[in-house]
Amino acid sequence: MNRVFLDACVGKPTPYTPVWLMRQAGRYLPEYRATRALAGSFMGLATNPDYATEVTMQPLDRYPLDAAILFSDILTVPDAMGLGLTFAEGEGPRFAQVVRDEAAVDKLAVPDMNKLRYVFDAVASIRKALALRGDKAVPLIGFSGSPWTLACYMVEGKGSDDYRLVKSLMYSRPDLMHRILAINADSVAAYLNAQIDAGAQAVMVFDSWGGVLADGAFQTFSLAYTKRVLAQLKRTGIDGSVVPRLVFTKGGGLWLDEMKDLDCDVLGLDWTMSLGKARAIVGANKSLQGNIDPNILFAKPDQIATEVVRVLDSFGKPHMDATTRGTGHVFNLGHGISQFTPPEHVTALVEAVHSQSKAMRL
Amino acid sequence: MNRVFLDACVGKPTPYTPVWLMRQAGRYLPEYRATRALAGSFMGLATNPDYATEVTMQPLDRYPLDAAILFSDILTVPDAMGLGLTFAEGEGPRFAQVVRDEAAVDKLAVPDMNKLRYVFDAVASIRKALALRGDKAVPLIGFSGSPWTLACYMVEGKGSDDYRLVKSLMYSRPDLMHRILAINADSVAAYLNAQIDAGAQAVMVFDSWGGVLADGAFQTFSLAYTKRVLAQLKRTGIDGSVVPRLVFTKGGGLWLDEMKDLDCDVLGLDWTMSLGKARAIVGANKSLQGNIDPNILFAKPDQIATEVVRVLDSFGKPHMDATTRGTGHVFNLGHGISQFTPPEHVTALVEAVHSQSKAMRL
Repeated sequence: MNRVFLDACVGKPTPYTPVWLMRQAGRYLPEYRATRALAGSFMGLATNPDYATEVTMQPLDRYPLDAAILFSDILTVPDAMGLGLTFAEGEGPRFAQVVRDEAAVDKLAVPDMNKLRYVFDAVASIRKALALRGDKAVPLIGFSGSPWTLACYMVEGKGSDDYRLVKSLMYSRPDLMHRILAINADSVAAYLNAQIDAGAQAVMVFDSWGGVLADGAFQTFSLAYTKRVLAQLKRTGIDGSVVPRLVFTKGGGLWLDEMKDLDCDVLGLDWTMSLGKARAIVGANKSLQGNIDPNILFAKPDQIATEVVRVLDSFGKPHMDATTRGTGHVFNLGHGISQFTPPEHVTALVEAVHSQSKAMRL
Repeated sequence: MNRVFLDACVGKPTPYTPVWLMRQAGRYLPEYRATRALAGSFMGLATNPDYATEVTMQPLDRYPLDAAILFSDILTVPDAMGLGLTFAEGEGPRFAQVVRDEAAVDKLAVPDMNKLRYVFDAVASIRKALALRGDKAVPLIGFSGSPWTLACYMVEGKGSDDYRLVKSLMYSRPDLMHRILAINADSVAAYLNAQIDAGAQAVMVFDSWGGVLADGAFQTFSLAYTKRVLAQLKRTGIDGSVVPRLVFTKGGGLWLDEMKDLDCDVLGLDWTMSLGKARAIVGANKSLQGNIDPNILFAKPDQIATEVVRVLDSFGKPHMDATTRGTGHVFNLGHGISQFTPPEHVTALVEAVHSQSKAMRL
C-alpha cells in the first residue's frame, strides 16, 4: 500500500508531499455525473454501497492521488436521527424537521448506528476495491461533520449565509445548544468508530462552519465538542494500524494556538492561513493539511504549478529525520473542489505537487 | 459636538467607549422602511440627498450613538464608471455590465466625480442636519468599498459565494486585475477626498471581501491597493480638523501583523478575532473598531449586556493617559446589523456599551 499519506499524518518523513482533494469524487467529473444520473439523486448515490464505491474510486482512476475519501455527506448523522435529509437539485441539503426549541431537543438522541449501515457497508466495499490495487492501494479516509457544523444544519434546516437561527438559539438558550452538541458529539464519535471498524484507515472531522463563530463562542460551542469526539475515538483500525485523526475548521487559522492542543494528528487549513506561520504555531506534534485556493484550478496549468510551489514553499523544508516526529504536510485544497473545475487542471495540480515536492527533498 | 468617537479613533482617552453600528440606518428600522417605500428603491433613497439625510438621522433619533454614517452603498463608484448598478428586491446589488476581459478593462477609467455629486450633496446635507443638534451633534463618517471589494462585484456582476470569476481572472490574468485595482484605488481616493471636502469628518474603507483571498493574494491584490488609497487621502477636513481613516477587512484578523503598518488610524475587526490579541498586535499606534457578533442582538437584553461586557473585557483596560497615543476602542458590530433585528435590542446594546465602559473607567 501507498503509505505516504498515513506517514505524513503522523509526522514521519515521506519521499514527496502526498495529495488528495476535498470533494475529489464529485460533480466536476463527467463519470461522476453519469453515475449520479443512474442513481437518480445524491442520497441515491450515497446510500448504495456499489455506487458509493464506484464514485469513490473514479478520481483515483484519473489521478495518482495519495488517499481515497469515502463518498458520503457530512449530514448523514442528523438524517439518522430522523430529521429527514434531502438534496433538492442545485439547492444543497435540506432537513424536513428542524431543531429550534426545547421540544425538538427533547426528541434528539444518539441514533441507532444500524440506520447508518449503508455507510459502513460502503467503507467495507471501498476497502475491497482499493485492495485490488495491491501496492498502489491508497488509504481510505472516513469522515463526519463536527458537532457544531451538524447543529448549524439541524437548527437552520439548510445552508445559511448569516447563521441567524442557530446563533440566536446559541446566545439565547445556551443550555439547549449544549444539549444538542453533546448528543451530536457522542453520535459523531460512535459513527466514526463504526467507520473505523468497517475499515477506515484515517478519520476526518469537518468543522465547516466553526469559522462563523465569535472568538469565545468557537471555543465553547465548537472546539469543546470536537474534543469530546476525539476523546472517544478508537486509535487503531481493523488491521491493528494507527488511525490518524484529522480536524478541519474552515476559517480556523485564528485559533490555531488553541487547536494545536487537540488530541489529533493533523489540522486542516483553508487558504487564508500561511502554512509557514501555522507550522511555527503547531510545532512538530501535529501535521498540517491544505491549503491552496480551489479557484487556482481555473488558471492555466503553468500558473497552477506556480501556486503549488508557493504553497509548498510557505510550508517550508520537509521533515526528513526518521528518528523524530516532525510536522508533516498533506497537500489539499483549502475547501472542496468546485463543480466547474476542468478535470485536466487537477492533473496539473497533482503532478506539480508530486514533482515539486520531490525536488524539494533532493 | 460629541467628540468621543473622533478621540477614540486617534487614541486619546475618552470618558466611555463610543459606539456606532455598521448599517445602523437600515431595514431593521420601521421608519427606514417607510422612507424607502416613499423613495421607491434603494438607489432612489441613496441618490436623493433629502432622503439620504432623513435615513442617516433616523437611528440617531432612536439611540445615543456616537457617530453617524453616510447613507449610501459601497458600489456607487463602479456605478459612476458606467456599469449600471441596480438592486433587485431581496436580491442584493447587480451590475448591468461586467468586467471580465481585456476589452472591458480597456473601457474603465476613474469616473468624473460629478457623477457622484448626489453623494457629496448628501454629505453636506447631513452635516447641516447634524449641526442643528448643537452640543449633541456627532461626527459624520464617509465611506467607500475597497478596490478589491469593488473589483469582486465588477467582475462577478453581483454577490458570490465562491468568488470563482473574480479569482479566475486574478489567477489567470493578474495583469488585468492589477489594472482594475489601480483604477479602483485612484477612484476611491478621489471619492473619499470629495466626501471630506463636502464635510465628512472620518472616512472608512470597507474591504468586505478581502477575507476571501488566500494568504499572499490578500497582500498583493487587496492590502496593496488599500495602501494606495490611504496614501492619497486628505488628512484634514473643511474645518481644519484631522479626519481619521478607518479600514475594515472582514476576515482580516489573520493579517493584523501586516495591517498594523497601514497608514490609517483605526482597524475594524469582525467577531472571530479576540480584541485583546488584536490590541497586543497593533499596539498604541492604532485604534480598534468592533467586534460583537450581530446575531447577539437576537438574544434577550440581559444576555446582550453580558456579551457587551465580554467584548469590553477582551479589549481590556481603556487608555487613560492624555499625554500619549493609546489604543482606542470604537465599539461596533463585526458586520452590518441584520434586517431582522428587534430595534429595542439595539437600545440595550448601546446602553450596555455606554454604562459598562463608563464603569470600567472608575
